[in-house]
Amino acid sequence: MSNITALFFAILVSLFSFGVAAFFYSWVNSQPSSNKTVHAVGALIRNGANTFLRREYTLLARFAGVVAVLILVFLPQPIWHGNYTENITMAIAYIFGTVFSAMAGKIGIMVATIANMKSAEAATKGIRPSFLVGFRGGAVMGMSVVGASLLGVTLVYLITKNAGAVLGFSFGASSLALFAKAGGGIFTKTADVSADLVGKVELGIPEDDPRNPAVIADNVGDNVGDVAGMGADLFDSHVASLAAALAMAIALDKGGGNYTIMVFCFGAIGLLASAIGVLMARMGKNDDPTRALNLSTYITTAIFGVATTVATWIFNFEWRIWGAVIVGLLVGTIIGIVSDYFTNDNKNPVRYVANASKSGSAFTILSGVSYGFLSVFPAIVGIAVSALVSYKLCAPLDPSNPVYGMFGISMAAVGMLSIVGMIISNDAYGPIVDNARGLVEMGNLGDKALEITDSLDSAGNTVKAVTKGFAIGAAGLTIIALLGTFMSEVNVAAAERGVAGIENFDILNPVVFFGLLVGAAVPAVFSAMLMLGVDRNAQRMVVEIHRQFKEIVGLKEGKEGVQPEYDKCIDIATIGALRELIPAGLMAIIATLLVGFIGGVNAIGGFLTGNIISGLLLALFMSNSGGLWDNAKKYIEAGNHGGKGSDAHKAAVVGDTVGDPFKDTAGPSLNTQVTVVSLVSSISATLFLTVNLFGK
Amino acid sequence: MSNITALFFAILVSLFSFGVAAFFYSWVNSQPSSNKTVHAVGALIRNGANTFLRREYTLLARFAGVVAVLILVFLPQPIWHGNYTENITMAIAYIFGTVFSAMAGKIGIMVATIANMKSAEAATKGIRPSFLVGFRGGAVMGMSVVGASLLGVTLVYLITKNAGAVLGFSFGASSLALFAKAGGGIFTKTADVSADLVGKVELGIPEDDPRNPAVIADNVGDNVGDVAGMGADLFDSHVASLAAALAMAIALDKGGGNYTIMVFCFGAIGLLASAIGVLMARMGKNDDPTRALNLSTYITTAIFGVATTVATWIFNFEWRIWGAVIVGLLVGTIIGIVSDYFTNDNKNPVRYVANASKSGSAFTILSGVSYGFLSVFPAIVGIAVSALVSYKLCAPLDPSNPVYGMFGISMAAVGMLSIVGMIISNDAYGPIVDNARGLVEMGNLGDKALEITDSLDSAGNTVKAVTKGFAIGAAGLTIIALLGTFMSEVNVAAAERGVAGIENFDILNPVVFFGLLVGAAVPAVFSAMLMLGVDRNAQRMVVEIHRQFKEIVGLKEGKEGVQPEYDKCIDIATIGALRELIPAGLMAIIATLLVGFIGGVNAIGGFLTGNIISGLLLALFMSNSGGLWDNAKKYIEAGNHGGKGSDAHKAAVVGDTVGDPFKDTAGPSLNTQVTVVSLVSSISATLFLTVNLFGK
Repeated sequence: MSNITALFFAILVSLFSFGVAAFFYSWVNSQPSSNKTVHAVGALIRNGANTFLRREYTLLARFAGVVAVLILVFLPQPIWHGNYTENITMAIAYIFGTVFSAMAGKIGIMVATIANMKSAEAATKGIRPSFLVGFRGGAVMGMSVVGASLLGVTLVYLITKNAGAVLGFSFGASSLALFAKAGGGIFTKTADVSADLVGKVELGIPEDDPRNPAVIADNVGDNVGDVAGMGADLFDSHVASLAAALAMAIALDKGGGNYTIMVFCFGAIGLLASAIGVLMARMGKNDDPTRALNLSTYITTAIFGVATTVATWIFNFEWRIWGAVIVGLLVGTIIGIVSDYFTNDNKNPVRYVANASKSGSAFTILSGVSYGFLSVFPAIVGIAVSALVSYKLCAPLDPSNPVYGMFGISMAAVGMLSIVGMIISNDAYGPIVDNARGLVEMGNLGDKALEITDSLDSAGNTVKAVTKGFAIGAAGLTIIALLGTFMSEVNVAAAERGVAGIENFDILNPVVFFGLLVGAAVPAVFSAMLMLGVDRNAQRMVVEIHRQFKEIVGLKEGKEGVQPEYDKCIDIATIGALRELIPAGLMAIIATLLVGFIGGVNAIGGFLTGNIISGLLLALFMSNSGGLWDNAKKYIEAGNHGGKGSDAHKAAVVGDTVGDPFKDTAGPSLNTQVTVVSLVSSISATLFLTVNLFGK
Repeated sequence: MSNITALFFAILVSLFSFGVAAFFYSWVNSQPSSNKTVHAVGALIRNGANTFLRREYTLLARFAGVVAVLILVFLPQPIWHGNYTENITMAIAYIFGTVFSAMAGKIGIMVATIANMKSAEAATKGIRPSFLVGFRGGAVMGMSVVGASLLGVTLVYLITKNAGAVLGFSFGASSLALFAKAGGGIFTKTADVSADLVGKVELGIPEDDPRNPAVIADNVGDNVGDVAGMGADLFDSHVASLAAALAMAIALDKGGGNYTIMVFCFGAIGLLASAIGVLMARMGKNDDPTRALNLSTYITTAIFGVATTVATWIFNFEWRIWGAVIVGLLVGTIIGIVSDYFTNDNKNPVRYVANASKSGSAFTILSGVSYGFLSVFPAIVGIAVSALVSYKLCAPLDPSNPVYGMFGISMAAVGMLSIVGMIISNDAYGPIVDNARGLVEMGNLGDKALEITDSLDSAGNTVKAVTKGFAIGAAGLTIIALLGTFMSEVNVAAAERGVAGIENFDILNPVVFFGLLVGAAVPAVFSAMLMLGVDRNAQRMVVEIHRQFKEIVGLKEGKEGVQPEYDKCIDIATIGALRELIPAGLMAIIATLLVGFIGGVNAIGGFLTGNIISGLLLALFMSNSGGLWDNAKKYIEAGNHGGKGSDAHKAAVVGDTVGDPFKDTAGPSLNTQVTVVSLVSSISATLFLTVNLFGK
């Protein structure tokens, strides 16, 4: 397979996936929707989501503009020193990355805010049609996000043939994802937490009760946080995994390899496998939505495994690299299963926490935190083992060149993320059916439909926990690979300038150790800033909800025709999220630059490592404990330990409220934080090498 | 100053500190105690504490016996390979370390369970006598613990002149501290959490109400957890800092240095300064106990600073090393001040959390977790900066020998821990006056006495937060220094066996990275195991308390002559603690051995680093958030946001209950976990170098 054929194949597969997305979109759109209330509420949600997105993107466009100018002037090296075409290329690639990332979010919102209404309406006909609408709505997102990622990376590479430009594109995608995820995460949890707190806890009215002024904001949040934010996040992980692999493949191909071809080929096969899996997804006779979601994931995995084997055989790729890809795929699956154990309500941890809730909310928190800490172990060991095995597999390709081993790790990440098209589809399905459930409740579509959407929603939660574990595992490998990319970028820059490169990052070098410690502290501060943002914002919204219940006559009693002022709550969530989304991400970027200018590339090597370690630790802890609390609450609501309204339930609601920002704001944003920091370091490698206080 | 003079000076100072301890002990003992109830309850507490300690030490003696045999057979290398006298020396030094550590705990309990009664009784006469009894009781512990540490290390060195034996002694001290801390921590929080939960939350009866069946167990817990556990912990840190510094000083002295002398001399000056500070401590006219405690700390610090300057000048020590010591001392003070900011109820964080509690316990938890995460940053950066500066200060002494830089870090740790005698005195004062408060309440010594002990108790809490930050910072530097010790031990062993040593731990080496990740996961698992232990145990005790209130007629109503069965609760706490204390520590030790046998010394280098980073992160987070919640509750109890019994108070109690095992069980045990793992690695260096799966 020649280089150009591989690129052509990748572009073709991307276009095919866009075709699948377009087909699903028109299919979803053609589904009937006639209920007026559903329509009206659906329109409120859509408008709220679009307004937020518009305001968020306006803010971020300004921010991205400033960054683009900074890149133009300073990166990869100050424009007055170096080759200014490189600076222009990188700046354009960066903008290109932000635009693609924003588009991924926008498309997701567009379809999700239609699919929720259609899925709600379909629920009146039965579980299978309702499931299909929800799933295909999610698949529009899955197909277009991964198609855009592959297409974007391929085009940037085709035009520039330059690793720096691909990294710039990836940085554009990641930096937008960082802020979109933070903004969306703060919005959604502000609304969710305060709606639950006043509605469920204080007043004892059901979830999604239309009397609750925050209920529409809560539904908007599902879209802007879970759909758009998650899409941007996985777009960014996928791009970063390709970029890391490509940067090293380009370096290795200088010795006459075909590794670039392999990266594009495997990326395209992954997307193709996901497209087939998505097209085949359908609910079986047993009416079990979880099974249907898992089955299509397994189909995708199997297709990917077989197709890469065939491709490796036909095109004479290195079997060792193929092995690394398969290691990634397998370990990804294992991490998913482990996450499931810690968050599934059929398993011990959730049961234990639910039972502990009988003794009060302090025990809910303590046991949840404990199991969250425990859950870190198998996933981290899984990542450690897959990094070690894939390195050891590929290093013998040329024992004198350490890049081979690192390339192996990056291909394990590509393997783990190969089926990401499928994963996004599953993941976006969740908030769509969650919204549908709300619409069924607000539109009074009947108990049967409520039961159906409840069961679809619960399947979404189970699958979400698994895919989240998967996403963190993949991000873990990607950022380890990016560490290798950073070293290779430093050495390329050093060779160009005739200065000494780096052979290692020695832990016993105090500058490296300094970086390690500071890097480890950043994720903690980042999470804290996001959670305090949610906290502050939710407290403002609680005040507003209280005001409405007090001042709007007849609202609490549910008097006919009396409506809360939904838009006030949406406004508070929007303004608050916009105010809080910049500082945390900026702090991480500035800390990286400071450490780089103080300690040079050695300190950055340590900084990235510390950041990866503590980022993984906290992300796994927060995602898993959050999922666990959520499901412990659901388990009690299903009638155990006294069911709804019991003391155990009240305690479990506290756990869930704490877990919400853990699992939907801070936890998943950490992936992106670490990726952004890694990419900032890679594209600033030359700068750190030349400008630093006492790096060497 | 000759070598022997320095050792003689160190022994003399240790004996002097024992003299001070003996003087205080007899002074405390001679204070009047006449109240019969106080006597009876005091006896219950003393018996409970002694019973627990006896059973714990019996269990640990068996455990230590097994470890001693393993050391005898396998360490520093299998007895059939090497020099068996080395094995015997190390095994004996190990046992010696465990015995000294156990004694430190025992002495602390002995005096604390007398001083609590005397201090309670003194409170009827005024705040100054009550303070002095509490403080001098604590000082008995401070003086004897640090005296024992200095004496033990000096004797082991005097007899063996062998770094391995000093490390073996340190390992003995640490391993006992690990289990004692875990056992005591589980005991104390089991009792505290369940007493609060049933007493304060469910029944609304005051703290220390004699009707509560868990109240005596709670007071016993203050002694076995806070006094004995904390003593063993700081004994272990102090020994480890001396051992790490000595191991490197011995290596450097081979080149003709006087570094060993310097270590002993500075260690002795620190103890002497503490003894003078302790002797001078007295409450001023303003009746402010916090001020009195802080003032004596400042006096000690100043004496240490001046005396080391004079010593360096007279004895011609290296000024650069002296600089590292002073850097450690200064940064320790800064970390203490930062901890104070995050846990002091006059400052923003505590106020914010107290205010957030008005919206419910979920917000108490969320904001507390957030500030806990934030608090990590300044302390970690402080440790990073002091490690970097002390390394850079000392490395130029011989740029070709990296041990100088590492020795600088170890001396910064010695500097930070120099005033530990003072710190222990302050720290042990806390639980003594806490207990005194309980005795005043149970003995009905009057409202005036209650007010006095309340104010003494609150000063104890403030000072405790600061000293805890100090202890974690010092442990952080010590374990970084132990990383250097590990490398130097590996290279000594490698040179002896004629194999290649290590020059660095390269992060990009996948074996090192594997170790990094696994090492980072261990503290999370360790904390989880301890907290689940508390959780399980507290749930058992809650059941027992409920049973007593139900079955014992007249107990709830406080009928004259009706007493709860205190011993049942003490029994549950004891049995539970003994059952839960071994697994977590064993897990950490076994994980170290597994990683070492799989990946060899390189993997261990990564493992220790990951362990240090995540251990510091979690320890700071848990200690500070726990302290913050405790003080937020106290702030509300002082009448803010509705005061006692308000909704905000209930939410704050949940925060405090979560924070209790954070700050008193898991958080402080993490120091010891990291230290033990570092020492296990150092004494097993030869073994890992020769026996491993694929280390190199």
